[in-house]
Amino acid sequence: MGHGVSPLAPARIAELPEIAGVRLATAAAGIRYAGRTDVLLAVFDRGTTVAGVFTRSKCASAPVEWCRAKIAAGKARGLVVNSGNANAFTGRSGRQATKLTAELAAATIGCRPNEVLLASTGVIGEPLDAEKFRNVIEGLGAGATSTAWLDAARAIMTTDTFPKVATATARLSDATVTINGIAKGAGMIAPDMATMLAFVMTDAPIAAPALQTLLARGVADTFNAITVDGDTSTSDTLLAFATGTAAARGAPVIAQAGDRRLGAFREALQGVLASLAEQVARDGEGARKLIEVVVEGAVSKRSARRIAMSIANSPLVKTAVGGGDANWGRVVMAVGKAGEPADRDRLSIWFGKTRVAHKGARDPDYEEAAVSAYMKNSEITLRVSLGLGRSTDRVLTCDLTKEYVAINGDYRS
Amino acid sequence: MGHGVSPLAPARIAELPEIAGVRLATAAAGIRYAGRTDVLLAVFDRGTTVAGVFTRSKCASAPVEWCRAKIAAGKARGLVVNSGNANAFTGRSGRQATKLTAELAAATIGCRPNEVLLASTGVIGEPLDAEKFRNVIEGLGAGATSTAWLDAARAIMTTDTFPKVATATARLSDATVTINGIAKGAGMIAPDMATMLAFVMTDAPIAAPALQTLLARGVADTFNAITVDGDTSTSDTLLAFATGTAAARGAPVIAQAGDRRLGAFREALQGVLASLAEQVARDGEGARKLIEVVVEGAVSKRSARRIAMSIANSPLVKTAVGGGDANWGRVVMAVGKAGEPADRDRLSIWFGKTRVAHKGARDPDYEEAAVSAYMKNSEITLRVSLGLGRSTDRVLTCDLTKEYVAINGDYRS
Repeated sequence: MGHGVSPLAPARIAELPEIAGVRLATAAAGIRYAGRTDVLLAVFDRGTTVAGVFTRSKCASAPVEWCRAKIAAGKARGLVVNSGNANAFTGRSGRQATKLTAELAAATIGCRPNEVLLASTGVIGEPLDAEKFRNVIEGLGAGATSTAWLDAARAIMTTDTFPKVATATARLSDATVTINGIAKGAGMIAPDMATMLAFVMTDAPIAAPALQTLLARGVADTFNAITVDGDTSTSDTLLAFATGTAAARGAPVIAQAGDRRLGAFREALQGVLASLAEQVARDGEGARKLIEVVVEGAVSKRSARRIAMSIANSPLVKTAVGGGDANWGRVVMAVGKAGEPADRDRLSIWFGKTRVAHKGARDPDYEEAAVSAYMKNSEITLRVSLGLGRSTDRVLTCDLTKEYVAINGDYRS
Repeated sequence: MGHGVSPLAPARIAELPEIAGVRLATAAAGIRYAGRTDVLLAVFDRGTTVAGVFTRSKCASAPVEWCRAKIAAGKARGLVVNSGNANAFTGRSGRQATKLTAELAAATIGCRPNEVLLASTGVIGEPLDAEKFRNVIEGLGAGATSTAWLDAARAIMTTDTFPKVATATARLSDATVTINGIAKGAGMIAPDMATMLAFVMTDAPIAAPALQTLLARGVADTFNAITVDGDTSTSDTLLAFATGTAAARGAPVIAQAGDRRLGAFREALQGVLASLAEQVARDGEGARKLIEVVVEGAVSKRSARRIAMSIANSPLVKTAVGGGDANWGRVVMAVGKAGEPADRDRLSIWFGKTRVAHKGARDPDYEEAAVSAYMKNSEITLRVSLGLGRSTDRVLTCDLTKEYVAINGDYRS
């Protein structure tokens, strides 16, 4: 695409350790891109459990429909992810492509097609030629290693400007367990060349229903609390795989999400999800500034989220931040349009540590120079206090720049 | 602002005829702009009725709160509109400014302050110095004429690149009545430098409650069916004034909105509102293309509207159209994210007259070249057939361009 690495990219990319029971391999299947990898195969040991959270789109992709049907059994032996084609809005041929892909992977792994999960990201509406996987899938199965995490993160990229990885460890009773995650996404979401995909893998022995509960709770303040453009993909997919291999080292098998021994694991999982989600926001198409929106004093968490998202999705707020303009009038506008309880005369707004508006009017004490200096930073916090209740929320987004328009307007022209 | 006239501006500006009972005058009060008019006074004959529709923002401006309280009585003798300052989020000083403005106008007109309606557009959060009106208001009252319609449309502009006017006549029993309208707005809405304001004036004798009903019904498919950026102003105001002077020429006094004699009038009013609303969309900030979104086969009108707005507000759809890209995958995305009933396998999509997607997959017969040629037009129609019901809707928007980002990002920096 010719666009450089996001200036908001992390200074260094974490090294991901091995996770017993997980092997990875990537290849160039030639789906759309030349000269780069575009397909990832993950192979899991027998006994691996799986959980998933998917897009709420009414026009979900064929792989999303495949995964929704298959994760009900809670077991996984393989995962195939391709970039370059989303296999979305492809009708019957899309369903056939998912079936063929799963069959090819199953033959290599030695499992049933129903135990293979799938995700695709890229262009919508183009038929996905799954026959292209036939040429590479055996090699992927034979060459899979426990160390190819960064290769995996790279193979699933589309308009991403950097690979997104995160890792954490946690004590689970007497054993240390590991959680690795990879993600891709550069919008929430650009369905033509992007889509949010994330895969989390752990050696902790956690039953599928418990893993599902942990995952569903985990996304609320991570992947569901970021936005780039308010657009929702047909393909958003977050899958978690637990190989359970840590049981051999003394980790207890966890059957219930409410198990008290999960405290540290839950926190570590949250950390991995939060890191990956933040990296997606940092790689928002055309982003030059990361924007943290904090809403306090709302009547409920749900109300706080809606107001925070109204601010984070406002093109006028995002262009103002991009232009270094502490335009708090637009924050007032975004609060007002959210449709949630808000009282102008109790509203206060901060840009960074400077209170610019207080109780329904401009704060007479604030100095424009200080705020203008703050707006030159690459990370900007907008804080709104509603003064109505005790609920808070926080979401992450990025600025709206001419580069966003260029990336999304000039792509096929 | 240094941005030229929108390429979507109407080829010619309509000439507005006189309306007996309405006099207009404009002046330069120096609110914010130098070298241009920024205040409009309209004076109405005794007996003029009024109706209004306002922003749904929870942080409405002081003039909106003033108007909401005053139109209950249904009578108007004056209207003061200023550009350059929205008198929004200005607390107690904002309320004092509205009161002073109404008092100054009332003294000039010779009416009560409660009979003066107000609207302000411009920067949010800056106190409005209504004392500045004191210097010009007497001159406005003395100089008001029945012909200053275009001057009026110009005085209320902010980031608008052309004045917005419309006119129509209708038979009301044996008399011909006239409807004139002026509007401003270049976003839906940029609260810092814009806001949608529209004023419609007629000589038809229509009681205030009937006028209110006509107006409220009239906005549904006109001003409520346009969007530039999905942002809602703190100040959106649409007021209708009926002087009733046509009664002297034999027009019947209309008490009920359901009066059968109103057929032609209702149609003419709808035409004026639709023309003004379309002109606002044509002057969308940075707009280079007008986009008409048509949704058919929805389960309800409400559902069709939500899906149409989801498409019209999608930054990805708008940037694609701006880039001349017939990216129907993004239309699928926008349908999917609307949260309304939709069945991928019944969905069809047209760009202009070309069907690009049919029953959940790419239409195998469409030629990219024909669609690419169509996308070079300055007016683009996106049509979606859901295949679920009989309800339809239509909304207007514009493309999202680098100029939008420049106008809204570079303004104060």
